[in-house]
Amino acid sequence: MSTPSNNVWAPAQVPVGEPGVPTHWLNPIPSLPEPLPPVVDDSEDQYRMKLQRRIRLQSMLALDADTNSLIPIPEAVREDLANIGRPTPLTRARALERRLGTPAQIYLKREDTLPTGAFKLNSAMAQVRAAKEEGAERLVTETGAGQWGHAVAFACARLGLHPTIFWAAISARQKASRHALLELLGARVESSPSSVTELGRRVGSDPTMVNGSLGLAIGEAVEYAAGHPETRYISGSNVPHVLIHQSVIGLETKAQLAALGVSPDVLIACVGGGSNLVGFMAPFFDDKAARGDDLRFVAAEAATSPRLTKGRYEYDYSDLGCNTPMVKSYTLGRDYELPPTHVGGLRQHSGSPIVGVVHHADLLEARAYEEKDIFAAGHALLMAEQILIAPESCHALLAGIEEALEAKRAGEARVIVICVSGSGTHDLEGYVEKVIKQ
Amino acid sequence: MSTPSNNVWAPAQVPVGEPGVPTHWLNPIPSLPEPLPPVVDDSEDQYRMKLQRRIRLQSMLALDADTNSLIPIPEAVREDLANIGRPTPLTRARALERRLGTPAQIYLKREDTLPTGAFKLNSAMAQVRAAKEEGAERLVTETGAGQWGHAVAFACARLGLHPTIFWAAISARQKASRHALLELLGARVESSPSSVTELGRRVGSDPTMVNGSLGLAIGEAVEYAAGHPETRYISGSNVPHVLIHQSVIGLETKAQLAALGVSPDVLIACVGGGSNLVGFMAPFFDDKAARGDDLRFVAAEAATSPRLTKGRYEYDYSDLGCNTPMVKSYTLGRDYELPPTHVGGLRQHSGSPIVGVVHHADLLEARAYEEKDIFAAGHALLMAEQILIAPESCHALLAGIEEALEAKRAGEARVIVICVSGSGTHDLEGYVEKVIKQ
Repeated sequence: MSTPSNNVWAPAQVPVGEPGVPTHWLNPIPSLPEPLPPVVDDSEDQYRMKLQRRIRLQSMLALDADTNSLIPIPEAVREDLANIGRPTPLTRARALERRLGTPAQIYLKREDTLPTGAFKLNSAMAQVRAAKEEGAERLVTETGAGQWGHAVAFACARLGLHPTIFWAAISARQKASRHALLELLGARVESSPSSVTELGRRVGSDPTMVNGSLGLAIGEAVEYAAGHPETRYISGSNVPHVLIHQSVIGLETKAQLAALGVSPDVLIACVGGGSNLVGFMAPFFDDKAARGDDLRFVAAEAATSPRLTKGRYEYDYSDLGCNTPMVKSYTLGRDYELPPTHVGGLRQHSGSPIVGVVHHADLLEARAYEEKDIFAAGHALLMAEQILIAPESCHALLAGIEEALEAKRAGEARVIVICVSGSGTHDLEGYVEKVIKQ
Repeated sequence: MSTPSNNVWAPAQVPVGEPGVPTHWLNPIPSLPEPLPPVVDDSEDQYRMKLQRRIRLQSMLALDADTNSLIPIPEAVREDLANIGRPTPLTRARALERRLGTPAQIYLKREDTLPTGAFKLNSAMAQVRAAKEEGAERLVTETGAGQWGHAVAFACARLGLHPTIFWAAISARQKASRHALLELLGARVESSPSSVTELGRRVGSDPTMVNGSLGLAIGEAVEYAAGHPETRYISGSNVPHVLIHQSVIGLETKAQLAALGVSPDVLIACVGGGSNLVGFMAPFFDDKAARGDDLRFVAAEAATSPRLTKGRYEYDYSDLGCNTPMVKSYTLGRDYELPPTHVGGLRQHSGSPIVGVVHHADLLEARAYEEKDIFAAGHALLMAEQILIAPESCHALLAGIEEALEAKRAGEARVIVICVSGSGTHDLEGYVEKVIKQ
């Protein structure tokens, strides 16, 4: 790990106003150690770029282009965030520490306590509020594990908008309870590949593609938006405005650790698109600049979609339909075969360009984990703390357990902070298959 | 509704210490408007009474016999209650009020926010803590909807005990996700009728009894405890110590309303065994004595097990095996056929003798509701407030909606306080069947 040589990091102290919800988002882009590679569109007449500008919310495009490090959170959104239970708790996993016999302190940032059970709601509330203020009544989006779709359905029910959600078929099938909840909240759910887009019909006719993927669902949602001008397209990962929204996680964590008088040694998050990771870690980038190797960032990914550990850093489309412009990031290639795991939130071929820059600058330690091992870690946490977390979050947990055991071997009172991105309430089928039936 | 003539109610102000968890439980028995009818055992040599004394925890028998109105909560239990998130929030359902166009204020006491999603955890933590202090390592119990079983599994995992749980077959089948969670928490789950007790084998051979019931599960658990002397029997409803434990709900609610400067006009709870109802309402009995008809108590039950609206007030066994002594309460008779509904928590033939006295003294307005109507009420709350509550709690909600609409007709700014006994996270199958498929 190198210490970045520039010093244009975000200020160490971001104002955290009453009642504990940050007053500003932190934009990670101005403080990145390398410039963000531009989005590229080689299509005739820049069709894809124009399409994005046409189907996206204007305020989100403006946020993507914002060059300020600190961006005021609109008052209505701050109230929304307080109403969904922000700030989320930072809890210490003392029972897990005891079971591991480690001198390390393990802290959990509890995004699982949000009413939809995942961090995705932070951006969904902000985007749906923006849509309402722009006068949009209909929204379309995609979802992988269903956490983003659930968050959008919740936010739309709360603010009175109507969402259509393309959901990767494998997860839509695995998570029957979450599927029911989306419909009860008034969302229109389309299992992807669906029959309502040309892309869905074409891909759906290939028997090897019936499980779908996040990339396919993105392609369907973008095509749907292109054909329905009254509908705005929103998304829950990868793009800058989502990572900006998610900075509330890290800003709160930083303030909570400071209130406890604790300085972190290692921050850990799972990585799919990258929004929980960057939202959690970006507020600590300035500490990293000052402390160098004394503060480490660990990214935990699924061994079945090992973008950071085995992918290439190059330009690629993030959707299977190639309807979006190309971005530079770590990618497995969009024809990479994604096995049907229970880790829908990490099951994608590429990720955020911001994660790409951070990893390329050697700020992240990336580790890839097998499904059976991460479920075992989740079960250990359930037995120790009676907290059931999402399999995606279990990747970060397992990395945290490794760190705690390493601290035990080294006899170090290391401070480990893990982002628990979501709850496992809708993942019991996976726990049954990988823990009970083993 | 008559105003009780005696004035030996509990004191109006119970000390609520930091951090907001009550310092004392409120024992409703000394303040009841009529003496509690004694438990009766006509068996030879009082076999059933002796069995109860042998299989129960000593500290719970002592609590049942305690004649004090205020009973100090042991410090370890107060810590346990704080650690599970007590006090639970009292929230106002403003969006629901707006949709109903009512001048009434609707408050929700949010027991659904506890980590197992139901009020049952209040007593489970207290009982499992007591078991640990008595040196018991193995516990056996029964559960209807699964909320009590879930709470016991959670508390046992937390404190290191080993539970066996007899679970009414119909709910064990309906709630696959909760079933998985109990097993993941380390509990041994027996679907009732089971093959491990004589009662279970006998009843299980009758094809009309395969759905089981709470009464059958009680009978199996008691028989199991009788045959396993190293195992203590605990239960989550009906008996006095459980109703005493649940007084934290009402004590907190009273303190929270006082802090808001709000005086309730009507308190509403669903009623199965009666512990959430009595725990919620008992701390307001003294106000009722002072205010008479200006403060009303509403008990909402299932039309398919209408004990208070159609039952008889007489002695009966609470278990199908007749292994427990007889208590006087409102009962449908233990051979009453309970249809296979999604409302496992209210699906029983008899209830608590304390509820019996309160209802017999005409302090409760009892109302019975149909399953399709209570699910529609639950869906209305989900759309308005994005809160998914248990079908049992939906009975109280529906009564609250009726009160709010009545207040609208009367033009009254009535204050309605509803006990939300549990979350609907594990009841989505019922919502799908009764809302989506209708």
